[in-house]
Amino acid sequence: MISTVPMKRVIIIGDETAEHQILDEIHALGATGYTSYAVHGSGTKGNRPRHGEPGNVKIEVIATAELAQQILEHIAGHYFKDYTMIAYIDDVEVIRGAKFGAKIT
Amino acid sequence: MISTVPMKRVIIIGDETAEHQILDEIHALGATGYTSYAVHGSGTKGNRPRHGEPGNVKIEVIATAELAQQILEHIAGHYFKDYTMIAYIDDVEVIRGAKFGAKIT
Amino acid sequence: MISTVPMKRVIIIGDETAEHQILDEIHALGATGYTSYAVHGSGTKGNRPRHGEPGNVKIEVIATAELAQQILEHIAGHYFKDYTMIAYIDDVEVIRGAKFGAKIT
Repeated sequence: MISTVPMKRVIIIGDETAEHQILDEIHALGATGYTSYAVHGSGTKGNRPRHGEPGNVKIEVIATAELAQQILEHIAGHYFKDYTMIAYIDDVEVIRGAKFGAKIT
Repeated sequence: MISTVPMKRVIIIGDETAEHQILDEIHALGATGYTSYAVHGSGTKGNRPRHGEPGNVKIEVIATAELAQQILEHIAGHYFKDYTMIAYIDDVEVIRGAKFGAKIT
Repeated sequence: MISTVPMKRVIIIGDETAEHQILDEIHALGATGYTSYAVHGSGTKGNRPRHGEPGNVKIEVIATAELAQQILEHIAGHYFKDYTMIAYIDDVEVIRGAKFGAKIT
């Protein structure tokens, strides 16, 4: 039976104009990869994107619990004031956890 | 350390022609926002979309456990009979939970 | 109150050229359906897709814990050596679980 490792998945949803900067910063914090895709949405600030606005992107990063917390803190501290953005975490079980920074013992 | 709040994420996958109605109804039930994006799929009723059919959409809503349950019941009661649709819930940890209706104590 | 059934969601992210083969194989293993959509990403092997490369796809399959484990083993055994691909599992609560192979007792 293949073994899995518990990891966290960080999900960030917001303005696509911030995507490249966020990815650079997450990489600098220690993330080994990400997945992203275009989405639509609506939140407490209204529909996104409105006509003529940049699109929304959803970014997913698999990380250790410690790194996931650091990413959340970074996003909240640097983007929540000026961007329409949400971020949350959930639990996943990965195979080949070492790829994502897990310490396999 | 930034604090997170446990919330539910409701995921609805089905015919895009029902998307706007579902979003209106979910909003009326109390949801503060949603994310949606186009998907493909297959289920017990075959491939979706087939040639010439409307596309499929995936809708995600972060909500309290109580609202998540209400949304599931609404979708099951109003759409499962006539639409090819699935719905499920998972657990997430959000920052700024009050945005999603969480009572922060 | 509508009842939900605990199930697993298998998530596979990788080269879209393998999508149809993977879907056929997952179906043969016993999966009753899937959802898929195009994504971008980066991992330990660099950005995907690079210019001129095939795109990346994310495949989601809701399954019993036993089938989810079988799918993970199949993907790891048949694709991880030659493809840039990741796979992981998370927990979901579905309505109408029998659609996904759950034994409703």
